[in-house]
Amino acid sequence: MKPTRLFILNGGSLAIDGYKVYWNRGPGGDIRFPVYSVLIDHEEGLFIYDTGFDLPHMQTYIPGDQPLQTPEQALPAQIAKAGFRPEDVTHVLSSHFHIDHCGGHEYFPQAVVVSHVNEYAHAMKPPLFERMSYSDLSFDPALECARDGLPPSATTYDRSPRYLLVRGDVEIASGVTLIETLGHSAGHYSLLVELAGQAPILFTGDAAMTPRNLEMMVIGSFHLDPIKATESLLRLKTVQAEHGAELFFSHSMPEFQTWKKAPEWY
Amino acid sequence: MKPTRLFILNGGSLAIDGYKVYWNRGPGGDIRFPVYSVLIDHEEGLFIYDTGFDLPHMQTYIPGDQPLQTPEQALPAQIAKAGFRPEDVTHVLSSHFHIDHCGGHEYFPQAVVVSHVNEYAHAMKPPLFERMSYSDLSFDPALECARDGLPPSATTYDRSPRYLLVRGDVEIASGVTLIETLGHSAGHYSLLVELAGQAPILFTGDAAMTPRNLEMMVIGSFHLDPIKATESLLRLKTVQAEHGAELFFSHSMPEFQTWKKAPEWY
Repeated sequence: MKPTRLFILNGGSLAIDGYKVYWNRGPGGDIRFPVYSVLIDHEEGLFIYDTGFDLPHMQTYIPGDQPLQTPEQALPAQIAKAGFRPEDVTHVLSSHFHIDHCGGHEYFPQAVVVSHVNEYAHAMKPPLFERMSYSDLSFDPALECARDGLPPSATTYDRSPRYLLVRGDVEIASGVTLIETLGHSAGHYSLLVELAGQAPILFTGDAAMTPRNLEMMVIGSFHLDPIKATESLLRLKTVQAEHGAELFFSHSMPEFQTWKKAPEWY
Repeated sequence: MKPTRLFILNGGSLAIDGYKVYWNRGPGGDIRFPVYSVLIDHEEGLFIYDTGFDLPHMQTYIPGDQPLQTPEQALPAQIAKAGFRPEDVTHVLSSHFHIDHCGGHEYFPQAVVVSHVNEYAHAMKPPLFERMSYSDLSFDPALECARDGLPPSATTYDRSPRYLLVRGDVEIASGVTLIETLGHSAGHYSLLVELAGQAPILFTGDAAMTPRNLEMMVIGSFHLDPIKATESLLRLKTVQAEHGAELFFSHSMPEFQTWKKAPEWY
């Protein structure tokens, strides 16, 4: 069995106010943070966890988040850096369908999209305050139609991906486990990856954007259910302790800058 | 039947960041806003809707909210301005038990506290992120003990108020109706008051802190359930339209400055 290799793909950065990162806590002022994908070259498939943001979409719909993404940081270029092509990807593991986590799903029409069933159901009809977060569902025209209350056509369905809709913790492949961390969104997944000769890595996703969220037990300001989101902070601590895992936060520049990025791997 | 008189009691002011008033929208920067009580001299009783904040408590526990309250703005002095004594109050109508809405409940041990049953139940065991909001339960030592996980003594119960715990819309007295607007807190009530010869007044409570919350359909950043809180914005619009009511927002300085205050009345 070949050893698992894990690549961090740099997808550029966004900047939002500190009150959005630390709910009701701040302090205010812009915080620029990284957006990245995780490519896992595994005996059982080529998995990608999250796919960052689509630059033109962000520039059009949410320019206030000040998106920065060089051509080298676009997802196909990043995958090439790791030595693969987009069509090699077998599974897209989705933390959730917010704009900065599924913007590149469209590059993998051949892959199975693994998502929490609640996330899929919720993205079909998000409440008003989440409409912008779910604005980039271009990877699934049928889902996009449902969100907008439009009837999809047969050809729309033809262009939609195949899904594996799940709930609870799910070991997708040996040592690659989706960890249910609800609250930030309706169906949010963190990801635990076991690697040979080193501690497992627990990718928090937006259950904890930075170490300070966990230290202060303060969730991010974008959320659907603050009680569940707070429970998910505790869940991350528990899973980390149980597995002796190293935490990789979703949006923290100081840590991100120290990580190995593709073509290097873990 | 004597005509209802409605007094606005000026309870001072607080200042919080704009991202706390307009969830994920801002802009940032301090917004100073009024805190007030509504005293209703009614044929069926003397009602007070909310009781502002307790200055020493705020200064001790949440000085960051920059509380300002002159001696004249303390609740007993305000009630005197309207020509009453605290012991004249028959019912405390509670929008919710957050620190800046129940800080003066303790002045009315003889009154019946009318609260949403969910609010009472929730204040007994608030989640971590709401602990500071429910930090001033001094009006009810038994509830305070429950919040802190302490066993209350018999004398503790002796000092707790009598409650009327309700749910749904409730007409407490003729033309004085609690309007259920959940989401900001577990059991939140707005208040509709009919007055002779003028439009009814709909006090939003924290279901909408300012007119801009309603215009933009953006809830405040302190909330328990953002979906219900957004529905409550719609509810306010509906109730306003049905009754031709004038909206009095909970925390908006420009409007507050134009209102009549005690000893004047509506």
